[in-house]
Amino acid sequence: MDLYFSPLACSMATRIAFYEAGYEANYLEVDAKTKRVEADGTDFFSVNPLGLVPTLRIDDGTILTENAAILQYVAEQFPDAGIGARAGIERARLQQWLCFIGTELHKGLFVPLLSKTAPAEVKAWTLEKGLSRLDYLDGTLKGREFLLDHFSVADAYLFTVINWTMATPPIDLAKWPHIKVYYDRTRARPSIARALAEEFSLYKAELARHKAAA
Amino acid sequence: MDLYFSPLACSMATRIAFYEAGYEANYLEVDAKTKRVEADGTDFFSVNPLGLVPTLRIDDGTILTENAAILQYVAEQFPDAGIGARAGIERARLQQWLCFIGTELHKGLFVPLLSKTAPAEVKAWTLEKGLSRLDYLDGTLKGREFLLDHFSVADAYLFTVINWTMATPPIDLAKWPHIKVYYDRTRARPSIARALAEEFSLYKAELARHKAAA
Repeated sequence: MDLYFSPLACSMATRIAFYEAGYEANYLEVDAKTKRVEADGTDFFSVNPLGLVPTLRIDDGTILTENAAILQYVAEQFPDAGIGARAGIERARLQQWLCFIGTELHKGLFVPLLSKTAPAEVKAWTLEKGLSRLDYLDGTLKGREFLLDHFSVADAYLFTVINWTMATPPIDLAKWPHIKVYYDRTRARPSIARALAEEFSLYKAELARHKAAA
Repeated sequence: MDLYFSPLACSMATRIAFYEAGYEANYLEVDAKTKRVEADGTDFFSVNPLGLVPTLRIDDGTILTENAAILQYVAEQFPDAGIGARAGIERARLQQWLCFIGTELHKGLFVPLLSKTAPAEVKAWTLEKGLSRLDYLDGTLKGREFLLDHFSVADAYLFTVINWTMATPPIDLAKWPHIKVYYDRTRARPSIARALAEEFSLYKAELARHKAAA
């Protein structure tokens, strides 16, 4: 399978899932600014008209988009990795967490905060509305190792999103101690430590490219 | 099952799913402003700390939140209704659509546009970023009756979200003819026509209550 990704973007969750499964995917880096595929300079919009990563090409050529869908698909392809959920209420809980992370945290809180074009009013309104979501998450993580009763793709996604707090100065995890403990513990997991180190290097290289092109 | 809902909110999609399944749920209205349960005046935050509808209480008392999770759970409880998806790539496509509607349309576009507190800068930035999502959707719906190859909970959700365009003046569906055709056709579906008529009445009553309390 081919995974289109940008360094440290939400596509890192799928990389973590592949590392958990021991699967060697083909990783295709998309420049976050130019939306060109680094390997061959082609236009990523021709693959996904929304220009969003992750985008997954499965082995019959089918293109799958949207993080929650890709993560669940990958979890189902590798049942032995145990990163998905059993049918029934556990699957509903997995979907609940993926939806919460995708809508309330990723889209509702972090997209405006991380945006380079959003005016100050947008960031202020976002913080006013969005920080209560971190309060809720902090309460939920108290005394809990994972979102489900085992590590799952929801944890891969949550770690990836919480990691963005290092780029959003108003959000200091010291205010949410259970999130901080969860983040620090999860970061030590081999799949995550490896993905984070690799994507951080690629991120620095991307910044250097942008600086050189400016 | 108990469904906590607010009139014309995204919880209408779950009502549509129940009508498709012929299931008589117990509908508990939550006032969108006071967050009180209309039937008994109790505080809805004690049911869902985020105060968000839909919230579903299943028959063993378990509380399930997040629209995409609830819709898939309901679809799985009533396989004969045929509003879910088969395992494998079809389920991935259903999840892809639920995720797109939830993140790009609902949270990314409509939440800021429908907000009564968002400053003008927020609405302008949202429109600048978000309308391309309607272009994408319009292209996808061209020549297509449903999002999958049959009516599914993703259509119930998409209809509910597109319906909000009547409350967001800058979005005139005339610009996206395939979305308009899809909306008009889907509105005639019995489950949707019934849900829309009922919730529109409840919405008017809610506005009248708020006006009387002001």
